[in-house]
Amino acid sequence: MAENNSQLTIGFIMYPGLTQLDLFGPADVLSRMQGTEIKYLWRNTDPVIVDRGLRIIPNTTYNQCRSLDMICVPGGPGQIAMMDDEETLAFLRRIAPGCKLVTSVCTGSLILGAAGLLRGYNATCHWTCLDQLSIFGAKAVAERVVTDRNRITGAGVTSGIDFALKVVESLTDKRTAQQIQLQMEYDPQPPYNCGSPRTAPEEIVDSVRARLHMFLSTRRTASERAAERLKELKD
Amino acid sequence: MAENNSQLTIGFIMYPGLTQLDLFGPADVLSRMQGTEIKYLWRNTDPVIVDRGLRIIPNTTYNQCRSLDMICVPGGPGQIAMMDDEETLAFLRRIAPGCKLVTSVCTGSLILGAAGLLRGYNATCHWTCLDQLSIFGAKAVAERVVTDRNRITGAGVTSGIDFALKVVESLTDKRTAQQIQLQMEYDPQPPYNCGSPRTAPEEIVDSVRARLHMFLSTRRTASERAAERLKELKD
Repeated sequence: MAENNSQLTIGFIMYPGLTQLDLFGPADVLSRMQGTEIKYLWRNTDPVIVDRGLRIIPNTTYNQCRSLDMICVPGGPGQIAMMDDEETLAFLRRIAPGCKLVTSVCTGSLILGAAGLLRGYNATCHWTCLDQLSIFGAKAVAERVVTDRNRITGAGVTSGIDFALKVVESLTDKRTAQQIQLQMEYDPQPPYNCGSPRTAPEEIVDSVRARLHMFLSTRRTASERAAERLKELKD
Repeated sequence: MAENNSQLTIGFIMYPGLTQLDLFGPADVLSRMQGTEIKYLWRNTDPVIVDRGLRIIPNTTYNQCRSLDMICVPGGPGQIAMMDDEETLAFLRRIAPGCKLVTSVCTGSLILGAAGLLRGYNATCHWTCLDQLSIFGAKAVAERVVTDRNRITGAGVTSGIDFALKVVESLTDKRTAQQIQLQMEYDPQPPYNCGSPRTAPEEIVDSVRARLHMFLSTRRTASERAAERLKELKD
């Protein structure tokens, strides 16, 4: 719905085990800007199995992608493996300098961190992993969408929709973003006041943390390992 | 995250041209219930091209699917073709009577209507098409999520997240739904008060309607044709 007709090319990294809504929330919003082309990027164009088992076909390989206006990295359980995926990290390092916007949703910011792209930036992440951003020299900000120069990061999963509407305004104008919000009938009515650790009952916060305990520990180890390698890369 | 371990089988109709967020919003929420299996249903298991060009692979054919606990029909531009798709309508008529819940998001309710499954029910739809529900003998209710007996329908696109959290509570319990809401950090902060025709500036509502004018007219013709066929089926 952008009023100008300039072509915008937006890339999403589409890796195995990503959280599908991290990707499809913002992709749905952004693709409504007129003249937008979305590249779903992976090493090859074989189907990728996302977190809940669905198989989705990437439309562009890293090698085929020479430049983008915006890159976005979603999060998900598969993010842990991506922290060691030199091919993806190298692609991010190559593509990011030419992008107008370098972005992520959820734990995708840890992948940006592992690529060395958040050092010295304010950023956000899924609430359970905010503390891991400092491992990469980023400053964690517990907000739903954090903008610092050309880095825009969204918090957990559903934040990708709020994130993408802000991106639309920044790439086009407020009117276009408003039209898209109305088209998507984005008038949220969450059933409970429970979507953030600040508002959820303590017992619910504790139960989610307890359930994720081992997983968060594995994620932290992966972050630390990635930060170590990043240091070696610079030395 | 369901506390009970009963297996739940939930089917989504995955047709060409569906709006990806209509499907992936609720699918992401619902698949977080422990023991849930999601069937992405289509005539065959060839990749389906959704509204923005992405190719996604169904995991179950109509013929392979004997029963479901819940069926959900998403909306999207491809809904218009589905109104004439006798194979999909016949599948819905066959599977719905055995389902605990018969549901839709966005213009998916028009497909349920075309299958004769909303006659005498309250239901909702994308705000631009609410008026088409009466063609199928349903009573349009301008709410984000409408429950009438075992029919649960969501309004446009993003309503699928609110819809699915309500479904989680109805299939498990409030605590499970709260845990999922927190896991998904569903603490929405829409950038504008513009997500519904009741709150959006009149000029924005008019511009969206004007842009969709021809499309809405085509959709209405398809609805009327489907209602006519449904009548013949009953005669």
